[in-house]
Amino acid sequence: MNKERLKKVLEKMDETDVCQLLITDPVSVFYLTGHYEEPWERFWALYLNKSGKHKLVANRLFSLPEVQDIEILWYSDSESGIEKLYPFVNHDKPLGVDGVTKAKFLLELMDRKAAAGYTDSSEVMKQVRACKDEYEQRKMEEVSAINDKAMERFKGLIQAGMTESEMAEQMLGIYRELGADDYSFAPLVGFGKNAACGHHGPDRTVLKQGDCVLFDVGCKKDGFCSDMTRTFFFGEPEEESKKVYETVLRAQLAAEKAIKPGVLLREIDKIARDIITEAGYGPYFTHRLGHFIGYDVHEAGDVSQASDIVAKPGMIFSIEPGIYLPDRVGVRIEDLVMVTEDGVKLLNHYPKELTVVEGNL
Amino acid sequence: MNKERLKKVLEKMDETDVCQLLITDPVSVFYLTGHYEEPWERFWALYLNKSGKHKLVANRLFSLPEVQDIEILWYSDSESGIEKLYPFVNHDKPLGVDGVTKAKFLLELMDRKAAAGYTDSSEVMKQVRACKDEYEQRKMEEVSAINDKAMERFKGLIQAGMTESEMAEQMLGIYRELGADDYSFAPLVGFGKNAACGHHGPDRTVLKQGDCVLFDVGCKKDGFCSDMTRTFFFGEPEEESKKVYETVLRAQLAAEKAIKPGVLLREIDKIARDIITEAGYGPYFTHRLGHFIGYDVHEAGDVSQASDIVAKPGMIFSIEPGIYLPDRVGVRIEDLVMVTEDGVKLLNHYPKELTVVEGNL
Repeated sequence: MNKERLKKVLEKMDETDVCQLLITDPVSVFYLTGHYEEPWERFWALYLNKSGKHKLVANRLFSLPEVQDIEILWYSDSESGIEKLYPFVNHDKPLGVDGVTKAKFLLELMDRKAAAGYTDSSEVMKQVRACKDEYEQRKMEEVSAINDKAMERFKGLIQAGMTESEMAEQMLGIYRELGADDYSFAPLVGFGKNAACGHHGPDRTVLKQGDCVLFDVGCKKDGFCSDMTRTFFFGEPEEESKKVYETVLRAQLAAEKAIKPGVLLREIDKIARDIITEAGYGPYFTHRLGHFIGYDVHEAGDVSQASDIVAKPGMIFSIEPGIYLPDRVGVRIEDLVMVTEDGVKLLNHYPKELTVVEGNL
Repeated sequence: MNKERLKKVLEKMDETDVCQLLITDPVSVFYLTGHYEEPWERFWALYLNKSGKHKLVANRLFSLPEVQDIEILWYSDSESGIEKLYPFVNHDKPLGVDGVTKAKFLLELMDRKAAAGYTDSSEVMKQVRACKDEYEQRKMEEVSAINDKAMERFKGLIQAGMTESEMAEQMLGIYRELGADDYSFAPLVGFGKNAACGHHGPDRTVLKQGDCVLFDVGCKKDGFCSDMTRTFFFGEPEEESKKVYETVLRAQLAAEKAIKPGVLLREIDKIARDIITEAGYGPYFTHRLGHFIGYDVHEAGDVSQASDIVAKPGMIFSIEPGIYLPDRVGVRIEDLVMVTEDGVKLLNHYPKELTVVEGNL
C-alpha cells in the first residue's frame, strides 16, 4: 500500500463522512496498492474502513505479488467475491462505492444487505487523484514531452494520397521509438469533414487538398497518460476554416491564461465558450473544455459548465476547445496543463499557430 | 434497429418477466442498433419497454448516424442523461438493468425513484447473444481461420534471444497482413515460469532453452473476436513439462468431444477438471474451462463449475484448460468451439500435439 496516498484517502473519507468505501476502479486500486489487475467481468476491489481494517478482494486467477500490509480475501470462479467480503462490511453504516462499480456487484451487495445504504462516493478518489504529487507531476511532464516530439513526426505523415488509417497505423511505432510504452488511447485521425465528428475513428478516407487534419493523440509511459490535439491544414484552407481555427486558438489561449489556484473550472470553460459564442460558433462547440488525466486518460473531474471544481496546485487537466461545422471542417486544439502555486504550467509546447502543410500533388 | 435481434430480446424479456430493460453495455447497444459508441464516463443506453416505446439516450458529443426507427433522447455534458430518460420509465414497475451498468447511473436512477425496483437482468442479453445466428457463425469462423494462420506465423517468431515484447509487437502487423482489423485483446506471450502467471503481459524476459512459450492471442474482423492459445516448447522440455502438456491436451480433447446440445456446461468443465485432478494437478488449474465470445472477447456466460448453462446450437465458447506450476511452467491449450444441431464444430484447427521448436543457439 502507498501509505501517503492511503492517508489522503482516509482523510478525504473523514471530510466527506464516508466511513467505509468500496473501490473497484482498477486504476484507483493500483493507485493505492501498486498492483494493477484487469479483472474483466470478475470482482476486484479494495475495501477501506476508517477503523483501519482494509481488505483486498481478489480472484484466485489474479497473479498478485506478495502483499504484507493488507489482508487478501481470495475467491475462485465458482465462488462470490462479495460473499467473502460480506462479514467485514459494517452492516449498520452506509457504504460508499466507486461510481464505476458494476451494477451486478452493487445489486448483490444490496441483496445481501451488506450495508445500511449506498452512496456514490466517487468524489473521494476523484479529489485525491486530481492533485498530483511530485512524482506524478514529473511523470506527466515526461510523457507529455514525448507527445510533443511525436506530434512533429505525425505532421510529417501528412502527404497526398494517405488515408487516416495509414497515418494512425504508424503512430504506435513512432511513440515507441520516442520511448513511450503504448498508446494512452487509440489515436483519432480525422480529415476534412470527418474532423467535425466528435469521436471519428481513423478509416480509409483519403487526404485531399484543403482538408484539415486533426490528430487527437496520446501515449503512455510508466503508467501515465499524455493527450494532445493539433489540427493542421493540407494546402490552403477556406476563409471560414481559418476563422474557425483562429477562434479556437484564441479560446484555447485565453482559457489557459486564466488558470490559477482558486479559480472555478467552470469559469475557465466559460472564458473559452464565450469567445467561441461571440464569434458565432457557440452551437458548434459541443463538448466540455477539458478533463482530468493521469494514470487514466480520462480521470474523474472535468472543466465544463457543470463543474464545481476549484483549481488547486497539482491538478492536471486538458484544455481543448473545438468547433465542428458538420460536413465541412473540425478544429480542436488541446494541451495538458498543470495548476501551480501561483498560476499554470503548460505540459505541451508544440506550436499552435495555424500551420499549412503544402501538398506535393 | 436489427428487428430480428430485437424480437428475440423482447421475447426473452417476456419469458423472464422483465417489462422494461436498460442496456448500457456498448456492445449490446451495438448488437441491437448497429451503432457502436465508446461512451467513456458518459451515459449511453438503450431503454427497451415491452410496450414498444424504446429510447436511445445519447450525449450530443456522440456522432450517431441518422436513425429512423427509434427516438433519441439527447443530452449535453452539462445535463443528466438519466433525467432525460426519467419521464419515459414506468415508475410503477421494476427496471431490469445490465450487470455492467455503472453504479453512478444506477444510484441516480434510484435517487430519482425512476422505477419500483431494480434487478440485474443481464441474463436477457446474455442468453440472446449467446446463440449466434448464421451471419455471426460465419463471421466467427472467418476470424478464427485468420487466427489459425496467424499462430503458424507466431510460431516462426520463436528464436533464441527474443523477448516476449519483441514477439508481441510483431503480432498486430501479422494479423493485419492476414486480413484482420485489429487485436481482439492485447496478446499474452509468456516464456517459462511467466506462462504460469494467469494474466502475465509480455515483458523483456528473454527466451531461453527449455522454456515453454505460451501464446494466448486473438484478432478482430468485422467486429467479431477470435481467441486461441497454444503452448510451444523452445528446445526439449523437462519430463514434468511434457506430462503437464499431455494432461492439458487430454483434458482439452475430452471436453471438446463431449459437447452437444443439451449438455450442462458445468459437466464439460468437470470432464476436463477431473482429468487434470486425476493426474495430480487439480490445484494448478486455477480458472474456469471457457467463456463465451462473439462481438466481445469475453461475453457473459462461462464454462465452469458454477455454470448452469445448457448447450444450445449456435453457442460459441472457448475450451481452454491449463496447468500452471508456479515458478516452473504453464501450459494452456484453447480452441473456440460452436455447438451444432447434433454435436460440436471446432472453429480452430491449428495443431495441438506437443511441438518442440529447435533453437539455433
